Amino acid sequence: MKIIHTIAEMQAASDVFRIEGKRIAFVPTMGFLHQGHLSLMEKGREKADILIASIFVNPAQFGPNEDLDTYPRAMESDLEKCKEVGVDIVFTPTNDQIYPQGYETYVELEKLPHHLCGLSRPVFFKGITTVVTKLFHIVKPHIAIFGEKDFQQLAIIKRMVRDLNMEVEVLGGALVREEDGLAMSSRNAYLTDDQRKEGLRLFQSLCKAKEMVQAGESNPKAICDMAKIHISKAHEAQIDYISICDPDTLNEVDAITGPTLMALAVMMGKTRLIDNMVLIP
Amino acid sequence: MKIIHTIAEMQAASDVFRIEGKRIAFVPTMGFLHQGHLSLMEKGREKADILIASIFVNPAQFGPNEDLDTYPRAMESDLEKCKEVGVDIVFTPTNDQIYPQGYETYVELEKLPHHLCGLSRPVFFKGITTVVTKLFHIVKPHIAIFGEKDFQQLAIIKRMVRDLNMEVEVLGGALVREEDGLAMSSRNAYLTDDQRKEGLRLFQSLCKAKEMVQAGESNPKAICDMAKIHISKAHEAQIDYISICDPDTLNEVDAITGPTLMALAVMMGKTRLIDNMVLIP
Repeated sequence: MKIIHTIAEMQAASDVFRIEGKRIAFVPTMGFLHQGHLSLMEKGREKADILIASIFVNPAQFGPNEDLDTYPRAMESDLEKCKEVGVDIVFTPTNDQIYPQGYETYVELEKLPHHLCGLSRPVFFKGITTVVTKLFHIVKPHIAIFGEKDFQQLAIIKRMVRDLNMEVEVLGGALVREEDGLAMSSRNAYLTDDQRKEGLRLFQSLCKAKEMVQAGESNPKAICDMAKIHISKAHEAQIDYISICDPDTLNEVDAITGPTLMALAVMMGKTRLIDNMVLIP
Repeated sequence: MKIIHTIAEMQAASDVFRIEGKRIAFVPTMGFLHQGHLSLMEKGREKADILIASIFVNPAQFGPNEDLDTYPRAMESDLEKCKEVGVDIVFTPTNDQIYPQGYETYVELEKLPHHLCGLSRPVFFKGITTVVTKLFHIVKPHIAIFGEKDFQQLAIIKRMVRDLNMEVEVLGGALVREEDGLAMSSRNAYLTDDQRKEGLRLFQSLCKAKEMVQAGESNPKAICDMAKIHISKAHEAQIDYISICDPDTLNEVDAITGPTLMALAVMMGKTRLIDNMVLIP
């Protein structure tokens, strides 16, 4: 496994793969890898000749009061994990490589970010669409894989790729959970034992919602109310949003008549947890 | 010469050229071609194996009160001219191809557009950077050529390409003038005989400025005042801006100590004329 730190070296390596006719799969990450990331890499490994992962904690997607400085990092064990899962190249640039002095160009969507996580994190998706555009120009993948845990991110990247005529096939990878059901996240490392336990209420609410829909409930408000009550029982929980919406437009629905996304975000103490499930009547 | 109307066909054609190891030069235009455009194409013809031009009047770069509907069009004679100058492919998509239903992704710079033409045309450069990003993904050029008449546009495209790690070499092509000195522009077609004559005052001001700087004048205000007085003698002229600025940052300078851009924009009746010159002390 090769580790590349500079843009020029990464572009040159990908040029060679492309000239050789090899298909490149790409998994961008912010590191502190868990089984969720690794499952995306495994999917990439199956789909292409060359598997490239990036590890870059992207400052542009953190707001001024967010956790950029404390975001967990573990480069050495990350590289171990990448190697085990069969990554060919890890691209891990410095901030100065990605955002040099005088940097001023951003890629932004006008509608999809104004839902769910975008409402309380105004620069978040602008930072993501910008860095992903750059990474696509640097890594030049045929396929890129993003986790379905970040459902809105996946929808936004797909829309961006279509809108800007990027020739990258964007695939989703299934959300991976801990044994008890907590959605895997690098930020779970922040949780106290008590918060960790109470964090389960997100998944429990989604499971209960699924049951309700399967039993015929079509009213989003009834489901949201159930989730609100269940999550609020955790005394450190502050609900950011509980949304039942169209999986394509992310517009909230009045009635559940087809596959519908239930997405939620909860501050558990200072740690932001998100989770989602597609409910099918 | 081949004419291509669809994105998929254009991408496939460029893929073939790239696989064959051919270098692609690209000149994006809004059509109604004059010698200024053709000189860019001639430059592209010299620099690459394959020359691709696009003709697309980009709605995203026109404000609501601007001249999108009346912008001059002459597809048939444009295609003739492209053929004469040795263009291999003209890419001329429909609006629906470029901005399909639900389109919502834009590329925007945060600093360079807030100068010169960007001040009175707030959506202009956002429309340009967006469409050029798309065209680069569709045409996949090695080299792209933009006229120095649109000096700010050229500076913005160069910055965008560097910021977003696009592997396109952006070249400027010298401004081309009519015999009497008026900068060539598709919009010159709008001018009445009288406006056409008075339009010369832009070039005359630049020439006088050049003389003043060569004679030792280093005060931008003295030069701007001269130009203001000279242009205002045309009774239909409304000055939008006269700016003496750094050619890289477009920030106005306090003193002319090195190569400095003088750029101006004037409404002549309803027609917007721009011109510029680099002044060298």
